[in-house]
Amino acid sequence: MPASKVPDIVVGRLPLYLRALAEMTAEGKEITSSQDLGERLGISSAQIRKDLSQFGEFGKQGTGYSVEYLSTKLKEILHVDRIWPVILVGAGDLGRAVAGYGGFVNRGYRIAAVYDSDPEKIGRLAGKFTILNSTNLEQDIQRNGYRVAMLTVPAAKAQAVTDVLVRAGVRAILCYAPTSVSVPPEVQVQYIDPVLHLQRMTYYLK
Amino acid sequence: MPASKVPDIVVGRLPLYLRALAEMTAEGKEITSSQDLGERLGISSAQIRKDLSQFGEFGKQGTGYSVEYLSTKLKEILHVDRIWPVILVGAGDLGRAVAGYGGFVNRGYRIAAVYDSDPEKIGRLAGKFTILNSTNLEQDIQRNGYRVAMLTVPAAKAQAVTDVLVRAGVRAILCYAPTSVSVPPEVQVQYIDPVLHLQRMTYYLK
Repeated sequence: MPASKVPDIVVGRLPLYLRALAEMTAEGKEITSSQDLGERLGISSAQIRKDLSQFGEFGKQGTGYSVEYLSTKLKEILHVDRIWPVILVGAGDLGRAVAGYGGFVNRGYRIAAVYDSDPEKIGRLAGKFTILNSTNLEQDIQRNGYRVAMLTVPAAKAQAVTDVLVRAGVRAILCYAPTSVSVPPEVQVQYIDPVLHLQRMTYYLK
Repeated sequence: MPASKVPDIVVGRLPLYLRALAEMTAEGKEITSSQDLGERLGISSAQIRKDLSQFGEFGKQGTGYSVEYLSTKLKEILHVDRIWPVILVGAGDLGRAVAGYGGFVNRGYRIAAVYDSDPEKIGRLAGKFTILNSTNLEQDIQRNGYRVAMLTVPAAKAQAVTDVLVRAGVRAILCYAPTSVSVPPEVQVQYIDPVLHLQRMTYYLK
């Protein structure tokens, strides 16, 4: 599997395919095709076949894909054939909404702990999690081997917290703070900022 | 400005540039360069110069870019030299967190109204908004000319609500529901699903 050569934009579409396959599974559908997936996702069937072909041969011409088999393979490729413990830093309104979000279940992740630096919040509940003191972040990450974090702190605090996370061993950060953070090349960062998405759309509106 | 020819992936980077420029403005910085922007964003300076060159000539070789001028131009290009009213449908935990999010201010959008179908929620507050009855969505959209919506309803309701939005005239939808929705080609959809981003990162983790 020549993983390192696959363009990141292709990697970015695989989770969409996996999500659509999970919906098909929930619907009791056992066989799908690139046409069928493409119609659900608004992506051309040729693109889907080309993307999947980078990772191997998952279906036969004319017979389509087994939903279960393709799901299993995509989970292996995306490394969600396991459950990653994820820490959440920042227990404000957004952090609490993320902590209570039900959408992680069965998709490869579970929130393991929630942190904040505010003495008013530490010890209280965020969803089902007792909010922990972020002064313990570094040692907790090292002790538990956490590799993945979500950042729901204010923009002004994002870089300082990121530095702690990276120093302690985190290698993938989902940043909800509306700012860019600097990380070394071995660390992945993805951003969730609704305005970035809105601007990408209003570009196309007259 | 040959807008229709610019690849969408380039369009997707412009909001990152604009966000970085806003941070520079806040820091009192007046001049920047593709190197400087690139270091903040983890994007190569060559890529930034190539992206911007698709829209015109915004700086001079050796003297860099005026932060204010480049911001103004990017706002025009992304159509956020105005304020778009945005409706939010779904006033659960996530919808209320989005309704209370302070990050829209000065970035081209304001939440105009919040809707839900739950009689227990209608009339209550979500942030500073009184939650409206979603049975009025279609007529409200038509009357006010809303073009942009955010969808924070459960996955099972996403397509039905999308159909109403599109029929009434919405042309850009930011979907927080963890599912894909079908829309006609004249409608833009972007998705915010943290798991999609997490999976894109854990692909790279051993």
